[in-house]
Amino acid sequence: MASEAFAKHRASMIEKYDIVIIGAGPVGLLLSTCLARWGYKIKHIDMRPVPTVTGRADGIQPRSLDLLRNMGLKRAIMANEPAKVFEVAFWDPRDGDQGIHRTGTWASCPKFIDARYPFTTLLHQGLIERVFIADLEKNGVTIQRPWRILGFQHDREDEEYPIQVTVGKVDSSEQETVRTKYLFSGEGARSFVREQLGVKMQHKDPIAHVWGVMDGVVQTNFPDIKMKCTIHSDNGSIMVIPRENNMVRLYIQIASSTDPDWNPRKTATTEEVQAAAKLIMKPYYIEWDRVEWYSVYPIGQGLADRYTLDERVFMGGDCCHTHSPKAGQGMNTAFLDGQNLAWKIHHVESGFADRSILKSYETERRLIAERLLDFDASYAKLFSQRHPNTHEVSQASNQISGSGQQEDSEFVKKFKESCEFTSGYGVAYNPNVLNWSREHPTASNPLFLSTEQGSATLRTGIILKPSTVIRVADANVVHLEQEVPLNGSYRIYIYAGLPATTKQALRDFNAALKKKNSFLSAYIRSDVSRVDQHEQHNPHSHFFTFATIFNASRPDIEIKELLPDILARYYDHVYADTVFDVHVPNTKASSHTKMGFSEENGGVVVVRPDGYVGCIIKLVEGSGTVDALNQYFGTFCSKPLGESKAQL
Amino acid sequence: MASEAFAKHRASMIEKYDIVIIGAGPVGLLLSTCLARWGYKIKHIDMRPVPTVTGRADGIQPRSLDLLRNMGLKRAIMANEPAKVFEVAFWDPRDGDQGIHRTGTWASCPKFIDARYPFTTLLHQGLIERVFIADLEKNGVTIQRPWRILGFQHDREDEEYPIQVTVGKVDSSEQETVRTKYLFSGEGARSFVREQLGVKMQHKDPIAHVWGVMDGVVQTNFPDIKMKCTIHSDNGSIMVIPRENNMVRLYIQIASSTDPDWNPRKTATTEEVQAAAKLIMKPYYIEWDRVEWYSVYPIGQGLADRYTLDERVFMGGDCCHTHSPKAGQGMNTAFLDGQNLAWKIHHVESGFADRSILKSYETERRLIAERLLDFDASYAKLFSQRHPNTHEVSQASNQISGSGQQEDSEFVKKFKESCEFTSGYGVAYNPNVLNWSREHPTASNPLFLSTEQGSATLRTGIILKPSTVIRVADANVVHLEQEVPLNGSYRIYIYAGLPATTKQALRDFNAALKKKNSFLSAYIRSDVSRVDQHEQHNPHSHFFTFATIFNASRPDIEIKELLPDILARYYDHVYADTVFDVHVPNTKASSHTKMGFSEENGGVVVVRPDGYVGCIIKLVEGSGTVDALNQYFGTFCSKPLGESKAQL
Repeated sequence: MASEAFAKHRASMIEKYDIVIIGAGPVGLLLSTCLARWGYKIKHIDMRPVPTVTGRADGIQPRSLDLLRNMGLKRAIMANEPAKVFEVAFWDPRDGDQGIHRTGTWASCPKFIDARYPFTTLLHQGLIERVFIADLEKNGVTIQRPWRILGFQHDREDEEYPIQVTVGKVDSSEQETVRTKYLFSGEGARSFVREQLGVKMQHKDPIAHVWGVMDGVVQTNFPDIKMKCTIHSDNGSIMVIPRENNMVRLYIQIASSTDPDWNPRKTATTEEVQAAAKLIMKPYYIEWDRVEWYSVYPIGQGLADRYTLDERVFMGGDCCHTHSPKAGQGMNTAFLDGQNLAWKIHHVESGFADRSILKSYETERRLIAERLLDFDASYAKLFSQRHPNTHEVSQASNQISGSGQQEDSEFVKKFKESCEFTSGYGVAYNPNVLNWSREHPTASNPLFLSTEQGSATLRTGIILKPSTVIRVADANVVHLEQEVPLNGSYRIYIYAGLPATTKQALRDFNAALKKKNSFLSAYIRSDVSRVDQHEQHNPHSHFFTFATIFNASRPDIEIKELLPDILARYYDHVYADTVFDVHVPNTKASSHTKMGFSEENGGVVVVRPDGYVGCIIKLVEGSGTVDALNQYFGTFCSKPLGESKAQL
Repeated sequence: MASEAFAKHRASMIEKYDIVIIGAGPVGLLLSTCLARWGYKIKHIDMRPVPTVTGRADGIQPRSLDLLRNMGLKRAIMANEPAKVFEVAFWDPRDGDQGIHRTGTWASCPKFIDARYPFTTLLHQGLIERVFIADLEKNGVTIQRPWRILGFQHDREDEEYPIQVTVGKVDSSEQETVRTKYLFSGEGARSFVREQLGVKMQHKDPIAHVWGVMDGVVQTNFPDIKMKCTIHSDNGSIMVIPRENNMVRLYIQIASSTDPDWNPRKTATTEEVQAAAKLIMKPYYIEWDRVEWYSVYPIGQGLADRYTLDERVFMGGDCCHTHSPKAGQGMNTAFLDGQNLAWKIHHVESGFADRSILKSYETERRLIAERLLDFDASYAKLFSQRHPNTHEVSQASNQISGSGQQEDSEFVKKFKESCEFTSGYGVAYNPNVLNWSREHPTASNPLFLSTEQGSATLRTGIILKPSTVIRVADANVVHLEQEVPLNGSYRIYIYAGLPATTKQALRDFNAALKKKNSFLSAYIRSDVSRVDQHEQHNPHSHFFTFATIFNASRPDIEIKELLPDILARYYDHVYADTVFDVHVPNTKASSHTKMGFSEENGGVVVVRPDGYVGCIIKLVEGSGTVDALNQYFGTFCSKPLGESKAQL
């Protein structure tokens, strides 16, 4: 007993954190930035004395730009004037030792993908990191550098802070031991935490390629130097990626496991790689004004068996998945790892959700990493076999989503899949408690809509489709999917169709929300009576924001006449669905149509805090719609919901 | 002789500037920012100890946003999250003392105006000033505060620096006397410089209104509090303007010359104005959480007789024109005053243009101010008579420019004019040496196109129409009108139609550019052989940038095959005109069509450094097109151009 008391005493003396984050690369920074904004106490360390100075990851995919905008960070990133890739060019050897020639180009994010930003943004990782670091500092978090993790253990000394972590200053004997609720490793491929946990990396194809990567300023007459290019030549292969500040990145394959003299430790000097590039790019010349960064690294596909063992110590980013850099997915996958974990930890720690939702971090994100590795392999294979011909590309590129009814060829299908994947919009989470399906605990409730039923275009587990609407309060033309920031709230979009048709349904919805055990009433803010009138997103609860979209013209929408009190309070989230959309040209209410709802009756979409669709529900008169929401949230919330229904 | 020598000696001791700018409001800041970027030595003083803290001007019109973007300042302005006005609502008294009701709304920048940003941006003037001040500081200019002008004289003591200026610290005896090439007054309505020059203000309607202006945060159930509103009631009139940070500005008319007890010195306390507002806004309530700024001022329409007497001492902004703040034109007109003068001073001082072009500052900008005053009066009259009815508004708003063939009613015509004017796109400069017309010295050359001839939509003296194209070098979708920044260069847009058709014309154009006395050869950079390969805009001359737009798909445009050497050097300014434009839906090459050029043969548009169209020329084989350009520039350039033609 004495030793237990002593241990408790010791635990009470030690500094305590909500989370200790190791590594300030993309995954660690995104997680840290979210949790800092939401008020958590964070210790964030990084081994490097300063943020990334040169090189490393640089591609922000269209879907990641949505995320950065949703966090309010896009403007600061774009202020660095990054390069933008709209098209990819293919270059192949000409017959008879005449060097390379262009065989085609395609859109990097073709029209059939409904992307708000149909391009890849290229910017050096350090500049991206600095945007996050500035935001962290606004919220009182400073990255502690250069510090590294020395040890950790999940013990019983403090139930609230079950993890003990020891960190030390690099090249110094200085150490700190702290306790924390969570430990996160965003350490990159060489992870101390992963090693300590004994988590194995599955190496699909261990070290299949050795790549040289060179950032620099060049002089060349190669016409596509500002485009992304895949160059095959009789002298080897190069990938060209434009960069900010007139730089260009070249990926040059130095060796691969298909070479007869394959050696995964093979390397090459800057001069050797430049000489190889000169040969490959003939008949064009290329000379370097300066080389900003050069690195050679062997790349093997690897996937961690587990992302956590105990839902207390988590890993993400390169720590869990490594692959070729060519598809530009590393940083983007890391961002989404960080985002996925952030709101789940927040919902557990704020008392909203059951601890079990933390399990979905691994199931959701490891699936994506698996797909990324599959894609990485098939992508390479697809284009090593042959480049697409002009007809195939134009056939695939010019289709607008949903409008193409003709049967695609196998090649075009793969092409489309690869575009969707690289853009980030191909990411789809499997069904679970958060992502409704016919296997969901609430499946017997007929008000839930599956993809096959009401909604041809919307499905759970994917990101909400972008749509443009008019905000009623100030007549601003806005991007609906961006209207609620990444603030930890579920976004409940009430598509209200024609006001005359849904008037009663909206009244009943409102009345049901007010019932004692509704999902809203159960998680009402303790300061609800003192909330500032200008609070737009969370006047009632920190976990829900309501938005109502009418199929009516803006001047005809009198918010206080059409909406009852609770819904009317979301005055800044009432919209007129009257903006033309090229993706659904034959409809009047384009946002309704994109969601698969009737223009008359509408429906309800529940979007998770990270922007992925959770469930889709019919909007009906009576309490049914809110009952269904109570059921949905009730499957993973901390409190019982909707009991009042049984009393009626 | 001795005294002359002494005077010269004294002049050589004194600090010398290219320009002394008095006042750091919008006009002074814009002028200063341009000239600082272009390397001029500037003394810039302001009487106020700090930039505008609260209140004052706040409306950035669509056309001004184009300008700010062209200067690279838009992102920093938008980072302040300004309010945006897309619609204006009209409120009128209901019959029988029942308070006000909404009678209609209209778009603040309707579809028939081809605007890149169809909204007004509302942001407190101080935040806008700070963006300019930060840019100035990057270029080594700090506003000297609080300092004011004490005296100046245009004498003969130093021909290069003919103006002597004495400035003094406010509330101190500290003084400085300097010499300068130019003196500019952006002092505002009470101008010492204007007074000293003896320039009179013409008061059309001296002090016609007394306005109260109040910025604050309110509580209200008035539904349009986030819209721009014109409210007429039986108890008086209010204009509502939304602001950043949940603020709202109310303009409340306290007295006007039509009142029976008219007194231009009438004033009112905050409480009186709030009480008046409460009466006007019935049946809605309005209460103030806080008042950030309140001011009462008598407004008279005034216009300075002259903007300069000697083309050395200039004035601009409120110093030259005062009017009601309701149309939100003050800051916007000031910006354009500053921009207009900046590049003209630059062209004279850099040796490019004849000093006589400085006369066009007054003729161009005073005309606009006159129109503003006319507009200000007629705008008030138009809507005091009646508000437009729904049919009229929808008739006017939904027409896309150029597509409406039906005859407009007088009211709709005036409505359209007023929208064009307030958006800033109605500004048109009259013909002069810079703005070609049938009265231009070069009028006998048949290659010049007038509006009546080739180009139905394009005319000289107006801003270049916006158009979206694809940049060939990197496949980026770009806004053509923004591709050349505000850097003091003329922008020569070569619409090259079909490559096969214009191939010879482009070769001949290129060859003629290379002739000894072409406008390009005459103003070649002295360091032309050492220009960095990444210089995009001015590889040959600081005064010209060439852009070539083909009616061809991007992958079919091989720049080095289609363009001869000089034009090919503008590698980043070659475009494919293949982007659909809703304003000209029935054309393939929308940018060609917008300029009024044939999709096959193209044509050339010369755009002044400030974005206004200077002249329009046929693209022909032979040297004719360049000969015409030589003639055009030759009318105001410092060197004789195109003599080589006579020798041929």
